[in-house]
Amino acid sequence: MAAGTPRWDDSAPIRLIVLGATGSIGQSLADLIERNRERFDVVALVANRNAGALADMARRLNTSSAVLADTACYGELADLLHGSGIEVSAGEAAVLEAVDRDADLVVGAIVGAAGLAPTMAAIKPGRRIALANKECLVCAGDLFMAKIRQTGAELLPVDSEHNAIFQVFESDKADQIEKVLLTASGGPFRTFSRAAMADVTPEQALKHPNWDMGARITIDSATMMNKGFEVIEASFLFPVHHEQLGVLVHPQSAVHGLVQYRDGSLLAQLASPDMRTPIAHCLAFPRRIPVPVKRLDLAELGTLTFEAPDLDRFPALGLAIEAMKAGGAAPAALNAADEVAVDAFLSGRAGFLDIPAAIEAVLDRLASDGHLTASASVDDVLALDLEVRNKTQEWINSRSL
Amino acid sequence: MAAGTPRWDDSAPIRLIVLGATGSIGQSLADLIERNRERFDVVALVANRNAGALADMARRLNTSSAVLADTACYGELADLLHGSGIEVSAGEAAVLEAVDRDADLVVGAIVGAAGLAPTMAAIKPGRRIALANKECLVCAGDLFMAKIRQTGAELLPVDSEHNAIFQVFESDKADQIEKVLLTASGGPFRTFSRAAMADVTPEQALKHPNWDMGARITIDSATMMNKGFEVIEASFLFPVHHEQLGVLVHPQSAVHGLVQYRDGSLLAQLASPDMRTPIAHCLAFPRRIPVPVKRLDLAELGTLTFEAPDLDRFPALGLAIEAMKAGGAAPAALNAADEVAVDAFLSGRAGFLDIPAAIEAVLDRLASDGHLTASASVDDVLALDLEVRNKTQEWINSRSL
Repeated sequence: MAAGTPRWDDSAPIRLIVLGATGSIGQSLADLIERNRERFDVVALVANRNAGALADMARRLNTSSAVLADTACYGELADLLHGSGIEVSAGEAAVLEAVDRDADLVVGAIVGAAGLAPTMAAIKPGRRIALANKECLVCAGDLFMAKIRQTGAELLPVDSEHNAIFQVFESDKADQIEKVLLTASGGPFRTFSRAAMADVTPEQALKHPNWDMGARITIDSATMMNKGFEVIEASFLFPVHHEQLGVLVHPQSAVHGLVQYRDGSLLAQLASPDMRTPIAHCLAFPRRIPVPVKRLDLAELGTLTFEAPDLDRFPALGLAIEAMKAGGAAPAALNAADEVAVDAFLSGRAGFLDIPAAIEAVLDRLASDGHLTASASVDDVLALDLEVRNKTQEWINSRSL
Repeated sequence: MAAGTPRWDDSAPIRLIVLGATGSIGQSLADLIERNRERFDVVALVANRNAGALADMARRLNTSSAVLADTACYGELADLLHGSGIEVSAGEAAVLEAVDRDADLVVGAIVGAAGLAPTMAAIKPGRRIALANKECLVCAGDLFMAKIRQTGAELLPVDSEHNAIFQVFESDKADQIEKVLLTASGGPFRTFSRAAMADVTPEQALKHPNWDMGARITIDSATMMNKGFEVIEASFLFPVHHEQLGVLVHPQSAVHGLVQYRDGSLLAQLASPDMRTPIAHCLAFPRRIPVPVKRLDLAELGTLTFEAPDLDRFPALGLAIEAMKAGGAAPAALNAADEVAVDAFLSGRAGFLDIPAAIEAVLDRLASDGHLTASASVDDVLALDLEVRNKTQEWINSRSL
């Protein structure tokens, strides 16, 4: 049944724009679109600079338009798609022109702060935004959500934890919800003492148990900062109070998210750790299309374990929760400081425990300087981002500010 | 938050009739109604013969009418409610008159075959039936569901497993569902060999790990016949094929039911083992009212385990699945044979393994005699019930038919 023919009732294909087409989300998405090709009309595929991968995907998905952010790679893309009938363009203006085309669904899967401007620009009335870019909410959550509300656009979360919560969050009953729980694998140092964590190497930290991810997010999983970012994202995505958001450590990564209702019911979404499930949920929502992922077999899995997160050993999670509560530019600063600190750890210029130490020092300093008030624009967000990066580099270099 | 004031938008109170008011479901229901008194108008409370408990509940819930099935207890009830202004009546006709009154919701919580006629009579257009009586579906599922469909009445399942499934069964997407899973504690003999089960005593079998239940259902849990009945009920409640229904042994009884979708998502409902949660879900559906049950704390619980059921050691479950597939009167015969066999076990006239042996022998004999064709009426169901009881008694007495 899993890989059978979709039985949608919708008559017209969904017009789709993909931002970040050549990344891992984009690749999974392309796989699903190929399996349900008649249901989607791919208006535009946007990537950064990987002309080869973009050209290949553009032909596979028969897109109308292929766009690169980096103009230096335009020639390569134009050559690769010569004679295909696919329109080719490059540069910032071309990206914004692409997101302005008629579309029903925009998948925002650009990695990093580069995703901010194009994803914000993609928010338009009558559109659905499937969001996989973390920065839109962590760095610019107030601005992003204000535009979502103003336009009446619909926001669907692609991230597995948020998508899980979305699946069991009865949105008409937000006032009847007591708690929203994100699960966390706990990372490779779940059972390490704080002393043992001081000596952790990048090689140890890069061994993540359940998901195949990039280097920064893998380190963010090891510190649990990644879960902290997800809690911040959840605070924008779901209409609950900060105190209603929680984290549950669950090493098997079978349960992805849970919602506790006031009648005592706890609803959960479980799945194999494969991004195609949440991506498909966003692609077809509210329909569910067949996805050829391994079905989660609880009898085969046997045991699921759960524990409360330990904020003493994983201070990054606590810093993220504080940043969420502080609001304003604190989450954006948290993200920028973390990126620089993680980079320093990966290149051997800082220890594992220096990551939260650097972030805490930088955020404390910026807060006391009054630099963490709400940003008024994406440009403000990017300016703060730069300031925080410089400050964090300074701390890494001198262990003081 | 749990015990706070309900925030319903509904303007008029829900007019409610309770069949089986003095049983354990009725008692839990009364607790919830008392906590949300302004939301319910209790039209009638119906019980079998417990005049004292009925009179007490009638006063507490300020019902309009209190009805006993057993006319011999009428005098006691009339005395107890003298001067209360509550209308008192008794007898079969009085029960049918009570279910005929104007009401929005009827809770069908009579235990046993006695629930068949009044619950069937309660099915009327525009009504919601919250069903806790097993026999309506196991013994008369075809008739019961035909009347539900004919009247357009709405059916909500009270049983914790079915209610759990109902909570995560996206009814507009039945064609996108792959599997529906009921969990089972596995009972006290989950780890016993078949040889060890031969020597099991009623005392051992009556120690059920998670729920506080009556004697028959406790033995049915020990043989897993109870789960078999629930699978049969699920086959009527949910629009899926027989092969899509499954059982997952889960000793901690935290997860009550799961639905597997074709996009790889497995949705589950979890809760502490307290019937007030599913009852409240039915009472207020689609709202969720505050219920003062212990919240399920997965970090505190720590570990959940799952295993496939072993049909070799628990043949009763296999017999139930066969009866479901055979259809017609097979499920009704299964239930009657089981009740007699369990009674024989409890009174020392049969061993634990004689329970499935008796049932299998009786069902085989009835099937080969052509006596398990579909029943045309509740009277036919009751006639078959009597025949099966006699046959099972005969097998118990002589170990042959």
